Amino acid sequence: MQPDQNACVQLLKQRFGDRCQTSQAIRTQHANTTTWIRPQLPDCVIFVETTDDICDVLRICKDHRTPVIAFGAGTSLEGHVNAPQGGVCLDMTNMAAILEVIPEDLIAVVQPGVTRERLNEELRATGLHFPIDPGADASLGGMVSTRASGTEAVRFGTMADNVLALRVVTAGGQVISTGTRAKKSAAGYDLTHLFIGSEGTLGVISEITLRLRGIPDYTVAGTATFPTIRAACDAVISAIQFGLNVGRLELLDTQQIAACNLYSGLSLAEYPTLFFEFSGMADAVDAEFEVFRGLLEDAGSFAVQSSSDGDERRNLWRARHDAYWAALAAAPGKTGLVTDACVPISKLADCITGAQGDLADLGLQGTILGHVGDGNFHVILTVDAEDAGEQARVEQFLELVSDRAMQMGGTCTGEHGVGQGKRTALARQSGDALDAMRAIKRALDPHGILNPGKIFPETEEIAT
Amino acid sequence: MQPDQNACVQLLKQRFGDRCQTSQAIRTQHANTTTWIRPQLPDCVIFVETTDDICDVLRICKDHRTPVIAFGAGTSLEGHVNAPQGGVCLDMTNMAAILEVIPEDLIAVVQPGVTRERLNEELRATGLHFPIDPGADASLGGMVSTRASGTEAVRFGTMADNVLALRVVTAGGQVISTGTRAKKSAAGYDLTHLFIGSEGTLGVISEITLRLRGIPDYTVAGTATFPTIRAACDAVISAIQFGLNVGRLELLDTQQIAACNLYSGLSLAEYPTLFFEFSGMADAVDAEFEVFRGLLEDAGSFAVQSSSDGDERRNLWRARHDAYWAALAAAPGKTGLVTDACVPISKLADCITGAQGDLADLGLQGTILGHVGDGNFHVILTVDAEDAGEQARVEQFLELVSDRAMQMGGTCTGEHGVGQGKRTALARQSGDALDAMRAIKRALDPHGILNPGKIFPETEEIAT
Repeated sequence: MQPDQNACVQLLKQRFGDRCQTSQAIRTQHANTTTWIRPQLPDCVIFVETTDDICDVLRICKDHRTPVIAFGAGTSLEGHVNAPQGGVCLDMTNMAAILEVIPEDLIAVVQPGVTRERLNEELRATGLHFPIDPGADASLGGMVSTRASGTEAVRFGTMADNVLALRVVTAGGQVISTGTRAKKSAAGYDLTHLFIGSEGTLGVISEITLRLRGIPDYTVAGTATFPTIRAACDAVISAIQFGLNVGRLELLDTQQIAACNLYSGLSLAEYPTLFFEFSGMADAVDAEFEVFRGLLEDAGSFAVQSSSDGDERRNLWRARHDAYWAALAAAPGKTGLVTDACVPISKLADCITGAQGDLADLGLQGTILGHVGDGNFHVILTVDAEDAGEQARVEQFLELVSDRAMQMGGTCTGEHGVGQGKRTALARQSGDALDAMRAIKRALDPHGILNPGKIFPETEEIAT
Repeated sequence: MQPDQNACVQLLKQRFGDRCQTSQAIRTQHANTTTWIRPQLPDCVIFVETTDDICDVLRICKDHRTPVIAFGAGTSLEGHVNAPQGGVCLDMTNMAAILEVIPEDLIAVVQPGVTRERLNEELRATGLHFPIDPGADASLGGMVSTRASGTEAVRFGTMADNVLALRVVTAGGQVISTGTRAKKSAAGYDLTHLFIGSEGTLGVISEITLRLRGIPDYTVAGTATFPTIRAACDAVISAIQFGLNVGRLELLDTQQIAACNLYSGLSLAEYPTLFFEFSGMADAVDAEFEVFRGLLEDAGSFAVQSSSDGDERRNLWRARHDAYWAALAAAPGKTGLVTDACVPISKLADCITGAQGDLADLGLQGTILGHVGDGNFHVILTVDAEDAGEQARVEQFLELVSDRAMQMGGTCTGEHGVGQGKRTALARQSGDALDAMRAIKRALDPHGILNPGKIFPETEEIAT
């Protein structure tokens, strides 16, 4: 800890008392714990309760040039909440109020610590829900900050499409509102989208205005088995081109299906498989699904199963969401590591089979699955954490996946964000656009106190 | 013209020859001509042909601290292309190539001078179209810059939802790419959305990657007549809450219907009327439309007409798009002025009836219509341009409409942008968020040469 940061923590203890914690256990709990990025602990953790608390922390930290790292549910995958320069972790657990729900406008206003599952539980009686579903029960503040998406993005888009406005505390401790409750606006710079995905490096989110959707009356979900990844991707391309109103469209490779069969008690044929869902009005859904079934068969699917039964559907998606645990269970003693890339869907089959080839070439174990309607896929690697040689091959693999996605006109991360893990990939992807990002960062956080060491590849020193 | 700007124009003439025009006629043609904002002419107009041309102009203009104003089709409504400090108008007419169409990824890459109608003509053979339709045959660069939307936004969103990436020339003459061809990305700051709607004040757009959609097989369009604005808005709220996949949902008030009847030869009952459209697969559309018809009747519509005939549908939407000309034709000798606001849909009836009250109180003539599925509406005023008293009442009216929308949680502009006309309204709406916008402006355009005098309320002097 720098001398000035030490003084800063003392001041924060005076201001926050027991809500400012410095124990090793709590600091460790708030440092990132994904396997290949080592945890880096903050100097203290403050359990904020109000926007004013956040303002006070930021003002004190600005004066002492001390880093501030917002922490939601700790589910990020790329080292977003690590504290490479120490500093203050802002724990949002106690900022978890659902402030307002306006059913006629399909709007909810929430604090950043609300998790998506809790929001949906609270909304149930209204007949509405918030559809963005990254799998983990992430905090909504974290989901905003990483521009999260997940299985329903093919229909409803990502967090970028489902946040109307944010309340943000700037690096200087000023509170700003970035938008309105209108569904669209052409009034000035789009600060809302600028803060979405900025990973806590431009401001601290203290309130979120979300778009909600009606819970559909009727849902059909199912699986379609294919001889090859390419055949499955062809079906996806057809469905997207046809403009089908598909609700979810997920691909699991053979290895992942085998793991899910074992872990979740499914009995699927062990081939590349699409998991899909359509929802809405029964007649419309049935009409769309019949067309979809034809497209699946045209693309070579040799088994299509579907059901509108709620339990069967929930089991299917639970199995999909447990894919990470299934992959881990299939590799006892190994630790898991997930990466993420996204390409135009015409390139998806090549990108996935390329990644499969890399796995084989490098002697790595991994399953592949993804939100293929968006061209987004994940590789779940199971790694021997003690084997330095394997670690090196994993890093090589991650770079190959990012670079192949970029060469295909895609992105090194579709939904996990940059954090610490994808910084050099982002630099390769962005070219000179990174200069514009740096200029914006300097403009909004002149002392570099907001989540330093993330997004930008250079080692960032706190400006004095 | 400042002495330095004069030298700048001389240099540009050397570089561009006949493509740099200084005649009064051409400069006048490129100055804004909306009625209540007086035209302010640039010192010269350059017909750029390549991204390199744009880079050269920006480098020369940066050295001479000379304003640069990008010009598409000149259809903006808020003085966006006016040149209050003179400078250089960049005419994009000759940057109108459709560079690439990738049907399997539903992507087109275009230059900024392509107009939306031309793009759709060229796309027809592919079975795809670009759905964003602001009415005017605007340039796509202009539509990006003002975050345009229009009648299909209720289904497909605005330009913010339909642009994947931009190529932008920065104020320093650097070319950057803001995104990829992947449908989503979590890689760094969202520069694409920052440039969308920035009205040429942060950079000059030289290439646009757009999302396309399939041309639907089947479309039903029609009208529903209501006793009151409020009843029509209630039907809209029900349809949106129900999650109906409505393609277009427009409201025209009684005065506007009367004007359209005369101008476009319609024979609609003269009451508040919804124009609507559903499109997609026939079975799904028919199922959704039947539910919609029920909602219309529940809300009190006493006449619902619909048709799947292409000609009838085209006539209907032509009449809707000609609404401005119809309103003008109904007020001979007057000039037209259109304003725009957007509120949460639960507030729409109050906001519109409030505006109708203001018109009556101020003795102004105006019709009201809008994209009510988004909570967005327009007032078309017909004004005596020679009557200074009426001009003053018009300005008062515009302020009342903006302020009421803001008080209702909405925005002073849903799709027209800020330009010169809404600058003080934006300041009232944004509060301290305007400081963040200013910081970004200074970071990306340190000398303030890009479209000065727009968005921000202060008189902007070119920084030396």
